[in-house]
Amino acid sequence: MIIIMSNEVTDTQIDSVVQRLKGWGLGSNVSRGMERTVIGAIGDEGKIDKELLQALPGVEDVIRVMKPYKIVARSYQKQDTVIDIKGVKLGGRQIQVIAGPCSVETQAQMDEAAAQVAAAGCRLMRGGAFKPRTSPYSFQGAGVEGLEIFRQAADKHKLPIVTELMDVRQIDAFLKYDVDVIQIGTRNMQNFDLLKEVGRLHKPVVLKRGMAATISEWLMAAEYIAAGGNHDIIFCERGVRSFETYYRNMLDVTAIPVLKKETHLPVIIDPSHAGGKAWMVPALARAAIAAGADGLLVEMHPNPCEAWCDADQALNPQELVDLMGQLKGIAQAIGRDI
Amino acid sequence: MIIIMSNEVTDTQIDSVVQRLKGWGLGSNVSRGMERTVIGAIGDEGKIDKELLQALPGVEDVIRVMKPYKIVARSYQKQDTVIDIKGVKLGGRQIQVIAGPCSVETQAQMDEAAAQVAAAGCRLMRGGAFKPRTSPYSFQGAGVEGLEIFRQAADKHKLPIVTELMDVRQIDAFLKYDVDVIQIGTRNMQNFDLLKEVGRLHKPVVLKRGMAATISEWLMAAEYIAAGGNHDIIFCERGVRSFETYYRNMLDVTAIPVLKKETHLPVIIDPSHAGGKAWMVPALARAAIAAGADGLLVEMHPNPCEAWCDADQALNPQELVDLMGQLKGIAQAIGRDI
Amino acid sequence: MIIIMSNEVTDTQIDSVVQRLKGWGLGSNVSRGMERTVIGAIGDEGKIDKELLQALPGVEDVIRVMKPYKIVARSYQKQDTVIDIKGVKLGGRQIQVIAGPCSVETQAQMDEAAAQVAAAGCRLMRGGAFKPRTSPYSFQGAGVEGLEIFRQAADKHKLPIVTELMDVRQIDAFLKYDVDVIQIGTRNMQNFDLLKEVGRLHKPVVLKRGMAATISEWLMAAEYIAAGGNHDIIFCERGVRSFETYYRNMLDVTAIPVLKKETHLPVIIDPSHAGGKAWMVPALARAAIAAGADGLLVEMHPNPCEAWCDADQALNPQELVDLMGQLKGIAQAIGRDI
Amino acid sequence: MIIIMSNEVTDTQIDSVVQRLKGWGLGSNVSRGMERTVIGAIGDEGKIDKELLQALPGVEDVIRVMKPYKIVARSYQKQDTVIDIKGVKLGGRQIQVIAGPCSVETQAQMDEAAAQVAAAGCRLMRGGAFKPRTSPYSFQGAGVEGLEIFRQAADKHKLPIVTELMDVRQIDAFLKYDVDVIQIGTRNMQNFDLLKEVGRLHKPVVLKRGMAATISEWLMAAEYIAAGGNHDIIFCERGVRSFETYYRNMLDVTAIPVLKKETHLPVIIDPSHAGGKAWMVPALARAAIAAGADGLLVEMHPNPCEAWCDADQALNPQELVDLMGQLKGIAQAIGRDI
Repeated sequence: MIIIMSNEVTDTQIDSVVQRLKGWGLGSNVSRGMERTVIGAIGDEGKIDKELLQALPGVEDVIRVMKPYKIVARSYQKQDTVIDIKGVKLGGRQIQVIAGPCSVETQAQMDEAAAQVAAAGCRLMRGGAFKPRTSPYSFQGAGVEGLEIFRQAADKHKLPIVTELMDVRQIDAFLKYDVDVIQIGTRNMQNFDLLKEVGRLHKPVVLKRGMAATISEWLMAAEYIAAGGNHDIIFCERGVRSFETYYRNMLDVTAIPVLKKETHLPVIIDPSHAGGKAWMVPALARAAIAAGADGLLVEMHPNPCEAWCDADQALNPQELVDLMGQLKGIAQAIGRDI
Repeated sequence: MIIIMSNEVTDTQIDSVVQRLKGWGLGSNVSRGMERTVIGAIGDEGKIDKELLQALPGVEDVIRVMKPYKIVARSYQKQDTVIDIKGVKLGGRQIQVIAGPCSVETQAQMDEAAAQVAAAGCRLMRGGAFKPRTSPYSFQGAGVEGLEIFRQAADKHKLPIVTELMDVRQIDAFLKYDVDVIQIGTRNMQNFDLLKEVGRLHKPVVLKRGMAATISEWLMAAEYIAAGGNHDIIFCERGVRSFETYYRNMLDVTAIPVLKKETHLPVIIDPSHAGGKAWMVPALARAAIAAGADGLLVEMHPNPCEAWCDADQALNPQELVDLMGQLKGIAQAIGRDI
Repeated sequence: MIIIMSNEVTDTQIDSVVQRLKGWGLGSNVSRGMERTVIGAIGDEGKIDKELLQALPGVEDVIRVMKPYKIVARSYQKQDTVIDIKGVKLGGRQIQVIAGPCSVETQAQMDEAAAQVAAAGCRLMRGGAFKPRTSPYSFQGAGVEGLEIFRQAADKHKLPIVTELMDVRQIDAFLKYDVDVIQIGTRNMQNFDLLKEVGRLHKPVVLKRGMAATISEWLMAAEYIAAGGNHDIIFCERGVRSFETYYRNMLDVTAIPVLKKETHLPVIIDPSHAGGKAWMVPALARAAIAAGADGLLVEMHPNPCEAWCDADQALNPQELVDLMGQLKGIAQAIGRDI
Repeated sequence: MIIIMSNEVTDTQIDSVVQRLKGWGLGSNVSRGMERTVIGAIGDEGKIDKELLQALPGVEDVIRVMKPYKIVARSYQKQDTVIDIKGVKLGGRQIQVIAGPCSVETQAQMDEAAAQVAAAGCRLMRGGAFKPRTSPYSFQGAGVEGLEIFRQAADKHKLPIVTELMDVRQIDAFLKYDVDVIQIGTRNMQNFDLLKEVGRLHKPVVLKRGMAATISEWLMAAEYIAAGGNHDIIFCERGVRSFETYYRNMLDVTAIPVLKKETHLPVIIDPSHAGGKAWMVPALARAAIAAGADGLLVEMHPNPCEAWCDADQALNPQELVDLMGQLKGIAQAIGRDI
């Protein structure tokens, strides 16, 4: 931690900062420049309360030198984490495309979708039973019954399932239907009580980035899960809010190399929610894989024109097959499989 | 709802849209322009699934004509809602400044704070017992014990209390300590399960705006609460995320006149979390009141340099007294009291 | 300048930074912490090339300690700059409302507008002869003829005029018609060649903030003008780009106290371009004055329904009169006049 | 154009809109819904003044049905434009990587850089002689002398040159040194007078996206150039401003498929200015090509640690060679060459 003092700082103010650091067990290095005095804290930065330092008289700015995240940091573990989802490996050489409809609607729809997901060569399936909708008057998901439908449909094709958890009270149902990967949605990225509960489970977690979350906040949200003992976390970039109105969200493709540098955990991309239009999905999916993502979360519906939600962003079954073909070439070009 | 067809639309595609509208019980008006055919849906827009329409072949864009919010809309109730909080009126002629520390720390701190809040002429007190912190390693709040401390301190001065609810499992404790106003924080603005539970209570709710929520999403989040039967909702603007790094968040002062036009519910501003620095608070507070806000949520700490969180954004007791003096003049200039 | 080295830095890398600083004539203070080595540069930060330092091996981050702006900084001049515009003082106790139409259309329109601006009690008039329009097919302004019309209309009421300069080749015309205040528009905030030319003139300049410019970039743009010798610069906040679509731009009211702290130059607000709707103007104007702005740039048109551009954001003459009345009360409440 | 009337509209107000449309030579279709009356304008939307309509009493919203851009629109020309730059084709099957240093420094530096650019297999070279710098005290570029140095260095390797034009007064020098491609920088995307001048030249133009420009504004800026007769325009996405602070700008990879849909003109990406760090460049470059970009603008410096500007974002010569190798595989995977 570096403390920059204002240009009219007094010796008493400097001493007060030094004493405060001492109280936390840290040493200090006072450097008096021509125009500014700068104090460097020596010791464990984690013990410092940054905001309190900032409130002390004479302090202009306090700058962190260390990253605030620990368990999820690349410095904590050098090699990439590979997560095993019932035998499907995510985070290694093989790229995983998790496909399926936005919402679980009926058994027939899910059976059809599961067959199509498997036929396209995908090894994991997505589908929402509990849906976060902007309007209270929109379809809110099939609920627990949806989990049962999803489980049954996916089991026929041995597809592990990925589905969103919105409330701590749904955890029992998630365990009952043995949901393989728990998704924490964009709107809950900083629902800290939910993160803490998920941190106590032994289930891989897909942690979607918040609507306007910084990468640092996102890593800290993962740290909430990791701190509870669950280290099987998959980051999922799904576009962030921007001023551009042509598409729904702005896919932050730069987040891929940044996360690869900052964390050892896998990174996937959701091109469907990013662009919000099915025709944008192939280009975004190719970009994500080329940039180094470990997988994708893609919406596919047996009949997009009849989907109960997000109809215009789902691929149809043939489009998914075509996409898998395109991605194969990209994967090979960068030395990976799909 | 207006459906704009692409410039190479076929009669079959137009007919398919018309039939779909018919299926929802709506009529249609087909207008063939020189370059575009436009279909107007006639009837209850609430019955239309916009995304499904957008996915139909030949449809280029679908534009909503009606606002999606109902109960919270100004068109639902012309006159301003005035919320009665144990006799303190919010939303009427009198402006309310809700002051207090960021976190409940100790009984002594809260006793002192309550006395100072009352002495400054404020009629409501704020304080957090459950704290949403970016890091799992930061102080997470005093919890249930904090509610008890807060209740006790505030009761001595007959100050109704405002405090944040983060998890549905805390509701019993909130009822036990008879929290007067429940605050839903920025990170939970779209925690829909929490909103639904709060919608079943008979307690006024302060609904903070999400980090990058549009005003429309914010109104829809309030609609979740209202749809459950609880219409005592107070909007709280606290700054939104932006590219500017000089301060913490960008206070959206324009949201004040916009909300006053769109909803009958009260609007308050949190200048402390917006700017993130105590020295910015007076200017932002004056701006908010001048723009028509019904109140403020202001951080005040008996000794900011010792606060356990957000130390550099809290006013000290004297600064709160000074602020109240400044606001008195502004309030009078626009025909209100404080 | 503080240089933070990566956690696997070598002595050679540290030495290389120290030597580089020495080459620029600066000393250094090397502080070896438990996890990071930090180097403080001692001497004139202005001589350091920050990007070059950042590119040196072993350097993780380089942090500026000093502000990059000089002449415009509050530390350069403690007291507020008051600019004299043909006897009208901007930046002092008296608040100035600069009103007038978006574009110069006809002599009749400008004559009428000038009379109404003066009648409302405003002391300066605005109007655009050269218009930056998003589309090449929109009305581009009346040009040089517009300057003549404007000059003539304003002179009848002794109103100094404020108008936008878009191109260095128009400067002669601006001098010929003795434009009193030159406005640099949002899209030209970083048109550095234009700023340099304006820096050589002896004319006050209104420098509008760029669409998504940080406050620091804005201050640096002003520094371009100041460096040329022209210190009569007026900052004009006009809303910045955001994700919100309800209104045109998000008025950054926090920029007012920030600029008041960072610079000695006057700050005005353009509530018309910020909100983009006439009905939002009074609330935003009141907020700006309450927050400490020195003036406003407001669109008023004799007949908004007939205006040639930005028709829906202009006040009509009576609305301007009403606004002036409201602002009078706010000004008095904060110890100023209007 | 569709005009949505407010819910308390009168017949007189509706008639007034109809008459106004008639005055512009357009017909109208009035559709009276249960809650809203909607008027469709029939005829050439280009003749309508949208803002004027919005200002009419009873009008709530006015929605454009047609795209505002014409010559640059995909509907104007179905097939992709392929631009010939002294025999190098941009916009066709072959991907072009335009490489070179940020600034022209010395003849030796440019000679070395040109040799390295050619050796890496690139066919076009970039380099800045006039530099837009945030600070007036930073190096402003080598100026006209820089153009001469650049021309000489590039000619030895028959590399056409790309360099930034900042001011209309520099055009003669650009013509004298026969600059092959004129770059319009981010800060000048809406410098309309500059765009008009460039529209009169017979030189391909690289039009960089503004810091926070929407795709629509960007297309309209290109329309300014095209309207003057110069149709050889290359869009260059270089990252937009966002709330994320980890990197410099957020690369908008979605803009690639969007532009490919909306315009027939080529699209390139500048991964160097987007991320701002050399280590991010390969991932962003691969993503751009995979998403369908026609080329890249990449910074390469013979010795990045000695570069006079943007030192930490330039690749070194070997990194450029490696990047070209990676891109070759990606290009083949999507059926293109490099």
